[in-house]
Amino acid sequence: MIKFDIITIFPKIFDSYLKESLIARAQKKKFIKINVHNLRKWTNDNHKTTRLRRQVDDRPFGGGLGMVLKVEPIYKAILAVKSKKQHVQKIDDRRKSVPDKNAKTKVILFTPRGKKFDQKLAHQLSKLDQIIFICGRYEGVDERVAKNIADIELSIGEYDLMGGELPAMVAIETISRLMPGVLGKPQLLKERITKQGGFIEYAQYTRPETFEPKKGKKWRVPKVLLSGDHKKINDWKKKHSKVIE
Amino acid sequence: MIKFDIITIFPKIFDSYLKESLIARAQKKKFIKINVHNLRKWTNDNHKTTRLRRQVDDRPFGGGLGMVLKVEPIYKAILAVKSKKQHVQKIDDRRKSVPDKNAKTKVILFTPRGKKFDQKLAHQLSKLDQIIFICGRYEGVDERVAKNIADIELSIGEYDLMGGELPAMVAIETISRLMPGVLGKPQLLKERITKQGGFIEYAQYTRPETFEPKKGKKWRVPKVLLSGDHKKINDWKKKHSKVIE
Repeated sequence: MIKFDIITIFPKIFDSYLKESLIARAQKKKFIKINVHNLRKWTNDNHKTTRLRRQVDDRPFGGGLGMVLKVEPIYKAILAVKSKKQHVQKIDDRRKSVPDKNAKTKVILFTPRGKKFDQKLAHQLSKLDQIIFICGRYEGVDERVAKNIADIELSIGEYDLMGGELPAMVAIETISRLMPGVLGKPQLLKERITKQGGFIEYAQYTRPETFEPKKGKKWRVPKVLLSGDHKKINDWKKKHSKVIE
Repeated sequence: MIKFDIITIFPKIFDSYLKESLIARAQKKKFIKINVHNLRKWTNDNHKTTRLRRQVDDRPFGGGLGMVLKVEPIYKAILAVKSKKQHVQKIDDRRKSVPDKNAKTKVILFTPRGKKFDQKLAHQLSKLDQIIFICGRYEGVDERVAKNIADIELSIGEYDLMGGELPAMVAIETISRLMPGVLGKPQLLKERITKQGGFIEYAQYTRPETFEPKKGKKWRVPKVLLSGDHKKINDWKKKHSKVIE
């Protein structure tokens, strides 16, 4: 089982996504576990409840518009969320519980500058025990989070989102699909997913053989697929396929 | 205002995403309009309610595992959803309302084989009046949808999802950000977004100047940002920036 922890200032965004589709089923069957944490939880854990202390963001040093997520609440969130069993006590600092450097946990920060998330990386990440996603707002996250806290900075594509919430869902869906049992069709996995975690995609057709959107217009299924000739069909499929990996 | 229509077999997936964050605000302020349509609506619109007619998917011709979304319900959905004002009557077919080829509507099918969605394309799409997203399931969509119905086949990245639902959210968020008014900070748009719709990203820091995660460990803000020297600060920002476009 893989555990996903999401740290966000918009925890409710995830509600219906997590309740629907194969993600809900995968959670119910305990193939994956997803916890959504509100970052604001780590801003009011002391008695100095001045407005400034309770804010998750603040204005950028050196000027500029937009707000920047602060490093401190994110640091506290990560400490709290890292799987406890993966904490060890270091000899030189007995009173503190320090995350084990060998633990199979990774902290991922989504940023537009990050390394491209792809199928190969998804496959590697699917071997972990825990993945913690920091959902930055794209206006800015204090750079010390990228430098000192995150293990990997990731981007899901060459476009600008409002924050890391959709990237977290994309990563969770992609990684979950690779977990045995999640798709619920082991043969499908075997048939369509390569050893490297790539996906074999090809043109497919289903009934009706001929669809007539309007009089005189006919959209037909390629004859070879109706031929029953397995060799020819396989050749056609190969010709019309693409491996995504 | 841009109108997004989403055709999906998982309409509920979108509920909380659409209710949160800047997307909710953009809808309330009428910068964008989002309609989610259940594809199943177009499978039971006749009296022949045999199980087969009501199915949105069926087995692939030529064999193979997994189910394939049928062409007919998708065709009907698109006809129903295309903005009515953009329909014209053609001389050769007076009884039917046919979509105007010049209308600023595009039908997008998400498929792993599609063209890469990027910021440049988002910028172009943001000029449209209506975008219809067909959320395929990645197991398969009848190829006639790609060939005969969709204007563009898109992929949001080199990884395999379960369907087009997350890609639709990604496209909506990326395109919406580019609509004037949506970010609510016109100066921010001017400062951080290039003429081509690219986004200028740079390292940012906010308080505290020094964060001490544990005794003896100090994470500091670069001194230049605290200097008050605007020329030096701008040089630093340029050096640490990246344009995503």
